[in-house]
Amino acid sequence: MTDFELRNIPDLIFGRGGQLRCGQLMREIGGTKVLIHHAGEPFVLPLIETVKELLRQEGLDFVELDGVVPNPRLSKIREGIRLCREQGVDSVLAVGGGSVIDSAKGIAMGAVYNGDVWDFYCGRAVPQAILPLGVISTFAGTGSEFSRASVVTNEENGLKRSADDFDLMRPRFAILNPELTLTVPPMQTASGASDIMSHLCENYFTATKDVYLNHKLLAAGMHTVIKNAPIAVKEPDNYAARSALMIVAPFVISGLLRLGLAGDWACHLIEHEMSTEWDIPHGAGLAVITPVWMTYVYRQNVPLFAKFAVDAFGIEYDFEHPERTALEGIAALRAFFSSLGMPARISDFHKGNITDETLRKMAGRIPYYGSKNTIGETFLLTEEDVWQIYKAAM
Amino acid sequence: MTDFELRNIPDLIFGRGGQLRCGQLMREIGGTKVLIHHAGEPFVLPLIETVKELLRQEGLDFVELDGVVPNPRLSKIREGIRLCREQGVDSVLAVGGGSVIDSAKGIAMGAVYNGDVWDFYCGRAVPQAILPLGVISTFAGTGSEFSRASVVTNEENGLKRSADDFDLMRPRFAILNPELTLTVPPMQTASGASDIMSHLCENYFTATKDVYLNHKLLAAGMHTVIKNAPIAVKEPDNYAARSALMIVAPFVISGLLRLGLAGDWACHLIEHEMSTEWDIPHGAGLAVITPVWMTYVYRQNVPLFAKFAVDAFGIEYDFEHPERTALEGIAALRAFFSSLGMPARISDFHKGNITDETLRKMAGRIPYYGSKNTIGETFLLTEEDVWQIYKAAM
Repeated sequence: MTDFELRNIPDLIFGRGGQLRCGQLMREIGGTKVLIHHAGEPFVLPLIETVKELLRQEGLDFVELDGVVPNPRLSKIREGIRLCREQGVDSVLAVGGGSVIDSAKGIAMGAVYNGDVWDFYCGRAVPQAILPLGVISTFAGTGSEFSRASVVTNEENGLKRSADDFDLMRPRFAILNPELTLTVPPMQTASGASDIMSHLCENYFTATKDVYLNHKLLAAGMHTVIKNAPIAVKEPDNYAARSALMIVAPFVISGLLRLGLAGDWACHLIEHEMSTEWDIPHGAGLAVITPVWMTYVYRQNVPLFAKFAVDAFGIEYDFEHPERTALEGIAALRAFFSSLGMPARISDFHKGNITDETLRKMAGRIPYYGSKNTIGETFLLTEEDVWQIYKAAM
Repeated sequence: MTDFELRNIPDLIFGRGGQLRCGQLMREIGGTKVLIHHAGEPFVLPLIETVKELLRQEGLDFVELDGVVPNPRLSKIREGIRLCREQGVDSVLAVGGGSVIDSAKGIAMGAVYNGDVWDFYCGRAVPQAILPLGVISTFAGTGSEFSRASVVTNEENGLKRSADDFDLMRPRFAILNPELTLTVPPMQTASGASDIMSHLCENYFTATKDVYLNHKLLAAGMHTVIKNAPIAVKEPDNYAARSALMIVAPFVISGLLRLGLAGDWACHLIEHEMSTEWDIPHGAGLAVITPVWMTYVYRQNVPLFAKFAVDAFGIEYDFEHPERTALEGIAALRAFFSSLGMPARISDFHKGNITDETLRKMAGRIPYYGSKNTIGETFLLTEEDVWQIYKAAM
């Protein structure tokens, strides 16, 4: 096992009625004037009214900023920062899914930063302080409620970038009430579950050695998603299935299931350009790109991909032909995503003509790094490799 | 999944050289004058010298209290409380295994309590404050470095009692460096591993429904112990095996693997009287009593014990005779403990004559609870049942 640190794990309030704790918890983390941040979608408005009443009961003042969209925008973060400064806001409560939480993290960092918040997203600055942040999650997917990252799209330059690995960015508490996800429509449920599965896979395909327990914990997460996601899609009000998805999401992204290993994460960078280009759900893009990526790289480590097939899907290991097992695992993952109704190819969600030039442009936008100018911690991909993967996903 | 909360999870510093962070971390949690608490055993003294130097480098003052023994004593806690008050100590650093950490928790609670610290151990008071507490762990077993419990023996009345389920009792940080456990002798290693395995089992045998993920995570922990404990016993300096044990211990006890389920915990209460009576290692007592307890109760839920056999040991399920599978699982657990060199019966470690009266007295000391005056959250045991279990373990 590699050396690692796990710091600032948020307090977790899991279960029915958890949102009723939000006023007390905001007070405990030092809030006196709270920014309530949300998407403003109709389903969330009754919850927002409840939140306001609970804050009032604790004697807390508040302001409100809605309008967060999927693949959240930098302009909204800037608006929130202005609002916090004008109104003397000292704490933030995000009520929503990953987009709202990521937006709230940007606001909470930017409000106490004497510079442009975009600095944190393009590596020009490291946050030294943040407004205390609480979360009421309404969606199982990104796990942003436990993570130390925020992903934002800058409309000015068309770049989607993440500020990550900042321990202090973790929320102070996360309220996870699966009841709040019972109304999430099937396609969004499937997209969220695909995002969770992708986070498990990104970590699973590691170059770190000595990851026996790490792989066991990640496989436990995979089994849970594989079993419960189809149930949640078919029976939206199945509390048990919603619960299972809702707890795996933060556990994988926080490091509690991966512990010290280094994940690959190329698929996330490849997908970010897809959701930037076509404004598709992140999870749907990942469902397309992950099996394509696996097919592109698996020959570099057949034993690892064969182990995935066995660990994740219980496929019988072919001792004479391990490559067959590896390929069966990739096929099983593709079939799993398809069973959720996720697209299998880019052409499944984008019916127009897509030129090679567009794919080249997308591949060109990715922030490659290191001496070899690549992405992927385990399997190094150049811009040319990424372009090939986009083409194979068409 | 049941409703649950996970709060105050300690910051985790895992890996080589982690102890070098202790000065900085003690300062971060607000320490200015630190009580260094340890057992005083020869192996720990060089580490204590390092700790002192690191505290000095951070400008922190300190006092020292050693002499903690296995099954830690209330008198030592009282001594520590007096010392803290006399010397104006404002923080505690425990350097050792579960006994030292449990003792440090008692001191940290008692130093800021205007009453007798024993109140917390016999249900007469709930702690409202605690000195900030840090841990450098030197032993993989109890997981006290992450837990919200402390178990102490009161020499005045011979009672071993726990103060538990107090979130604020969790240490603020835990430094886990597997290198510090490389010198733990085989029998203590085996005893610690048996304690970890017992914590996994106590949680596994739950009456809580809808525990798919919980069982998966607990099984991941079991596989890790079953694979790595024999390696750590045979090859004490095997870093990978030591790492695996060191991380499972706090993860299971903290709730990170069990999530919201309610464990049974009868075995722990039954064992406490064994280590009180004969001053044996807690883990060795658990290795004896757990399979005996399983044999005593399994008929009440054969499917659960058959599932344990499949989940923990990969035993093939006998669809026609599930009871055979259940019994195979119990036999496999007994064989696992024996393979570590743990005793299988009380007579393996206590060669003298043990009268029925002694066993009756031990069963009588246990704090039964509830309307039926029993222990065990899943399988209710009366004093008579416990006596039968002691007899079966002879």
